[in-house]
Amino acid sequence: MEKKKQIAILGATGSIGTQALEVVRACPERFEIRMLSAGTNSDLLIRQAIEFRPKTVAIADERKYHEVKAALSGVPTTVFAGRDAMEEAIQHSGADIAISALVGFAGLGPTLAAIEAGMDVALANKETLVVAGQLVMDLAAKHGVKLLPVDSEHSAIFQCIVGEEHSVIEKIYLTASGGPFRGKSREYLSTVSQEQALRHPNWVMGAKITIDSATLMNKGLEVIEAKWLFKLQARQIDVIVHPQSIVHSLVQFGDGSIKAQLGLPDMKLPIQYALTYPDRAKSNFKRFNFAEFPALTFEQPDTGTFLNLALAYRALEAGGSMPCVLNAANEIVVAAFLKGEVGFLQMSDIISETMEVCEHIAVPSLVDYVEADRRSREIAAGLVTKSKGIYQIAK
Amino acid sequence: MEKKKQIAILGATGSIGTQALEVVRACPERFEIRMLSAGTNSDLLIRQAIEFRPKTVAIADERKYHEVKAALSGVPTTVFAGRDAMEEAIQHSGADIAISALVGFAGLGPTLAAIEAGMDVALANKETLVVAGQLVMDLAAKHGVKLLPVDSEHSAIFQCIVGEEHSVIEKIYLTASGGPFRGKSREYLSTVSQEQALRHPNWVMGAKITIDSATLMNKGLEVIEAKWLFKLQARQIDVIVHPQSIVHSLVQFGDGSIKAQLGLPDMKLPIQYALTYPDRAKSNFKRFNFAEFPALTFEQPDTGTFLNLALAYRALEAGGSMPCVLNAANEIVVAAFLKGEVGFLQMSDIISETMEVCEHIAVPSLVDYVEADRRSREIAAGLVTKSKGIYQIAK
Repeated sequence: MEKKKQIAILGATGSIGTQALEVVRACPERFEIRMLSAGTNSDLLIRQAIEFRPKTVAIADERKYHEVKAALSGVPTTVFAGRDAMEEAIQHSGADIAISALVGFAGLGPTLAAIEAGMDVALANKETLVVAGQLVMDLAAKHGVKLLPVDSEHSAIFQCIVGEEHSVIEKIYLTASGGPFRGKSREYLSTVSQEQALRHPNWVMGAKITIDSATLMNKGLEVIEAKWLFKLQARQIDVIVHPQSIVHSLVQFGDGSIKAQLGLPDMKLPIQYALTYPDRAKSNFKRFNFAEFPALTFEQPDTGTFLNLALAYRALEAGGSMPCVLNAANEIVVAAFLKGEVGFLQMSDIISETMEVCEHIAVPSLVDYVEADRRSREIAAGLVTKSKGIYQIAK
Repeated sequence: MEKKKQIAILGATGSIGTQALEVVRACPERFEIRMLSAGTNSDLLIRQAIEFRPKTVAIADERKYHEVKAALSGVPTTVFAGRDAMEEAIQHSGADIAISALVGFAGLGPTLAAIEAGMDVALANKETLVVAGQLVMDLAAKHGVKLLPVDSEHSAIFQCIVGEEHSVIEKIYLTASGGPFRGKSREYLSTVSQEQALRHPNWVMGAKITIDSATLMNKGLEVIEAKWLFKLQARQIDVIVHPQSIVHSLVQFGDGSIKAQLGLPDMKLPIQYALTYPDRAKSNFKRFNFAEFPALTFEQPDTGTFLNLALAYRALEAGGSMPCVLNAANEIVVAAFLKGEVGFLQMSDIISETMEVCEHIAVPSLVDYVEADRRSREIAAGLVTKSKGIYQIAK
């Protein structure tokens, strides 16, 4: 029997984190948990740590330190708390692979820490590559670690290119469900609520990514992520709407042949694949059955209604700090939309305006990224405040 | 630049043979023709030989020897004619790879000759594996040669398992167009003509395989072929009807993930892949476009109407000489149907009866296969003659 894979989970109490622990729970002969982290959900982190007995845990909310420490007194686990807790807990974990399951720009620092500690990274935090793709890829190459996609679309591409030469990839198709508002008009979208936007037709996910799916920004971020993961040009990346979410993405090769990866929408599969790669492990995940999906349909995304996808391509073409600006502005407007401060359509407008206003840096350092992120948030937040009045009046 | 791949084509003037030459013509920097063979079409063989200047050609029809010889007097090509011409021309060709594009049981001998000459075989003649799978696989292993599928379905499976471990293949789905009579009743089928059966909705192919597609026997033969090519059990091979013929087949792995290969129906792609494997060569084949195929649909095959698929599974389960019996009886009834001697539905009846009557040999030698083939043809032909009277009266 091979040595068990030692796993760290950045963001253990979220949607991806808890599903990753389900995968680990089902394969105790393959996997062992070395590190878990949470933002504020100390209750769940404590329960997870008692079950999996990691070497380290991190809780970002410093006020929860004593609570976690006391609860884990019977477990051989070192507790870190506060701002840099995740980086410290990663460094002391001795894990082989870190699952980066944080949400947004916040995932960048801990992911870089995992790479610098020589760990492979199973990347569920797409913003890490969106914001600082070049920097992250360079660092991964320098430390000789693998970046393994966890997003279902990128996992699909990754599975389709196994055993193929990179040079024969002609293009990829990222599939998009189209979200809850597929086929709707801008007029309709001007009135939709947070509750409606949070009802994703196929996937159960966290709030941020669910809103990103409704606006198609999620697909835009995935286009940028794909560029870095698979070393492609923007023109090689296409998006196709596939409402059933069964075909997770496709690759077209230079001879015209296309490979696709399919399956029921279940994040446990790409999580497990990232952890077992290059092997596959038997699973008891529910199997796809054609009888339940007699038709798989495909249509062009409506970029005239959902403007975010075009904004993402624009950011990708501009390069440098622009995807970081796009991402930061998006994080602000999604949070504002969830609080009812801006309407659905205003999200794109504010992102677009932030991209126009924010200074562009062609070859940013990490410090530049942090500053571009801070500055974009400031601008976007200002635009939220400005439009809030207008939005409230309109409501 | 690598050495050009030296190619022999068994059945150069047929549908697969001529398409293989199109592939070779488009990639003169990769491929060179060493041997071409034809049954009776001397005109086309001569034109092909003048264009590609192979080392050897074979014409099975002995009466055409002098015509071919005279026409190729200016070309450095040795002409073989008659019964064993193909085997001789293969042996003297010095090819690296033989494309086996003959139709029916007749492909077995020349394919075995190519394997014994140490050539890889690009197998378009599925009957070779249907009839004598164990014997062919053993011989290929003994000579250390590769069997590369050319059938679009098997090429799809082959492409999907590149880079994957064999042990993680859970099952495969072979897709079937359903042919021109999909959705029709037995009552309707009792009246259909050869002309109707020859109108395949998606693929342009030879007459034998087009009728086999209409009866679903083609899919039955492919199930048996897949068993040998991919070392699977019958229960791991499923058939799903997919009328658009875009998804060429699928593989389900032990973790539940499915990979599919897609593309427009064009045999040049699998032919080229078999010739370039493990590489892919750029091609200018027309690309698939989702706009032309907004819905890919799937349904269960109607095995209550199309009985051949069940007969093929029965032959596969019985093993030994039974698939050879199935194939021989099928060749007889298809020829009889094309001549208007039997009706569409009688084809299954005669095959079934031949399988019941013919002696079963559990571990046949090559001599046993030849005898089982001869005997089955005799029985099936007798049943054709018997039913001919009935069929003519019914008409």
